[in-house]
Parts: sequence; structure tokens; C-alpha cells
Amino acid sequence: MNKKVTVGQQILSLNEKYALENKQIFAEGGKLCLNMISSPGSGKTSILTRTIIDLRGKLTIGVIEGDVQTDLDAERIRATQAAAIQIETNGACHLSAAQVNNALYKLPVSELDLVVIENVGNLVCPSAFELGENAKVVVLSVAEGDDKPIKYPSIFSKAKVMLINKIDLLHAVDFDIERASKDALKLNKGIKIFPVSAKSGEGMGNWYDWLCESVKSVKG
Amino acid sequence: MNKKVTVGQQILSLNEKYALENKQIFAEGGKLCLNMISSPGSGKTSILTRTIIDLRGKLTIGVIEGDVQTDLDAERIRATQAAAIQIETNGACHLSAAQVNNALYKLPVSELDLVVIENVGNLVCPSAFELGENAKVVVLSVAEGDDKPIKYPSIFSKAKVMLINKIDLLHAVDFDIERASKDALKLNKGIKIFPVSAKSGEGMGNWYDWLCESVKSVKG
Repeated sequence: MNKKVTVGQQILSLNEKYALENKQIFAEGGKLCLNMISSPGSGKTSILTRTIIDLRGKLTIGVIEGDVQTDLDAERIRATQAAAIQIETNGACHLSAAQVNNALYKLPVSELDLVVIENVGNLVCPSAFELGENAKVVVLSVAEGDDKPIKYPSIFSKAKVMLINKIDLLHAVDFDIERASKDALKLNKGIKIFPVSAKSGEGMGNWYDWLCESVKSVKG
Repeated sequence: MNKKVTVGQQILSLNEKYALENKQIFAEGGKLCLNMISSPGSGKTSILTRTIIDLRGKLTIGVIEGDVQTDLDAERIRATQAAAIQIETNGACHLSAAQVNNALYKLPVSELDLVVIENVGNLVCPSAFELGENAKVVVLSVAEGDDKPIKYPSIFSKAKVMLINKIDLLHAVDFDIERASKDALKLNKGIKIFPVSAKSGEGMGNWYDWLCESVKSVKG
């Protein structure tokens, strides 16, 4: 005979379970957590190293680095004296909430204002996996072309911030900031858009202001 | 009672089954098929449009375009008068051999010398799925950084050709062609490396020579 089982609560996937646990860690500690997503080579690590150095004394930032292979990016972050934990996915195309959960126990979270998760360089898969973050930040380099928001809509629909990086290259490439911004805003009315150059520093102040305000708002 | 079944042949996955079928179509027709893989915005479509135009009269090229969303790339190919079939994956991060098989019935394959599959912009996932191609071609733009071969080793290990694109930007970015080439060769002794600019045309001749020779060799 079959036994009828009533399921009174939503069944969570393993990823959702860990994402919720991570979210609680951030909420209880009053920490901001950002999940940074982009194509390979858009400049996520360069944005982070400059941000850490420029905001020294104002914000203490820790980084969880996701890469298919190597710990080169964590080394670049540690060279700024910030704490960084490298996760090598060994071929996997995105970070999971369980991997982030594990890394959180190795980071000195209580001493941090902000935890940034630098996801695997991939504009497609990482947007489908919640890691427990407060917000996703998408980075698009001007060298990639202004058609990326409509061609890869998922991450541009979900991100709270879009950093248009490498604006120091604007003279040498065909990239229309207005077109990329309009397309992103069509997908996502509330998205904040900051054109920046992690190399020259241009525009980084607007990003820093948003970061400091967002850190303050989760501290309550 | 359980019945014992002896399986005498290797069981193929659905993707492998279609990849084999595609391979047969190319082999029987004496056609070269290339699977082009890169990050978003490395310039795959620009390389293809310039190649189609510059080799007009020498090679007839047809293109299967893979994108998460939009048919913008197929439109760019069709503007050169070449045949192009767009596959929109609706969120999926790579093309499957079944999708390519379906597209092959819509392309005028018998009239072509070369079928290029432009995969979804993603340096991770597409390298794991055979589509029935003769060779994979990886494109790396100099704006993405010279550390990509060691950070994303799978595709650089499997590709027969690596196009280092956007060399017109070399003056404006930090990219060491020698470092990227050495790292790719360490992973893959036989890989052919062609630094090119689809924009200025610089270096494209070496790529065209390789293409024409490879087309000739599969015609038998």
C-alpha cells in the first residue's frame, strides 16, 4: 500500500540551502556581500584590487575568488594585504553556495565590512546560482562590445550594478555606452550603471560611493 | 526473474550520437567543420565576416551561429551574402550536437567548402561538448589578458588553432603574446597560433593559409 506523505515546507535544493545559510551569516554579521559576474578578462580582479587600495581605512574588504584553475587572482588580491580565499572549480563553470559556505569559515568575516565573491569568468552560468549575496554586480568591458546586454540578458536582468569597465579604451573600440545602458535598463529598470576604468581610476568614485552607502545600509 | 543483457557495444550519449552523425555528414561531403569557441566579445563574428569577404571566390563558407539570445550574429554573417543559421539556446551555455545536426539540414552544405560553428560566448562549457567538428578554434582577444590559457586550460588543450585577436589594441593593453603562446603550447604542443586583427586585417593571411590548406586536406 502506498503511504501518502504531505510535504508542508518547500523542499530546497542543496545550493539553495547553503545560499540561505550564507545569507544568514551576512545578515547576522551586518556584512554586505556582492557576487561579481562577467566574461573572462573584463577586469573584475583589477577593479577589486584598486577598490581595496583606494578604500583602505574606510572599508575592510575580503574576497572569495572563483577560478576554473590557478590561484593567480587570490595572489593579486593578497598583494593588497586584503584577505582572499581561492576556490578552484577544476573545470566547473560557476561557484556553488556550498563552496562559498566553506570559504566563509576560512575568511575573517567578523573583521570585514564587505565580502566580494569574484565568480568564475562566465557571462552565462553563474547568474543561475544564488550564493547568498545581497546583490549581483555585472562587469562589462568596452572591448567586449555594446551588444552584450541583449545577447546575455539573464545576468543583466538580475544585477543591481553594471560596471562598464576599461573606458580608457573607448577611443580604440566601437562601444556605445548609451546603447549598452539603454538595453540594460530595458531588462532591469533599477540597475545602477557606472562607467569606470580600473586602470586610470576614472569614474571609480561613483562605484565607491555606492559601495560605502550599501555597506552602511546593511549595518542597520 | 531478472534477464541478463550483454551489451556488446559502447553506449553513446545522445550528444555523442549526434556528433558522430554530424562527423559523417562532413566526412562524406569532404567538408571542413570548425567549432569556434571564446569568451563573449573576443571577436568571433568579426573574424568570420572578414574571412568570408576576403576569401570570396576561394572558399564558400557557411555559418551556424550559437547565441543565448538574439539573431544579431547571423544577421551580420548574412550581410556578407554567406549562408547562416541562428540557434538561440535560450539560456543554455553551449551548443549541443543535436542542435547543430538540425541546423545542418537547413544549411546548403553541399555547396559549401567550410562550415563554421560559432559557439555561445563562453570559455568554459562549450569545450566539453563535441559537435562533430574536424577541429576546435579558440579565439582570445588581447583585451582579455594573457593569463587566460592557464586559467581556462580545457579549451586551450583541445583547440587546433588559437587566434589572438584585436592585436590593433596591443599598444593600449598589457598583453604579452609570448607568455600566452608559451602557456598554450605547454598545454597543447601542436596548437597553431595566429595573432590577428579582424579590424585592421593584420595577420589574417596566416589564418587564411591554414584554412585553405585544411579545406584541401579534407577534400582528399
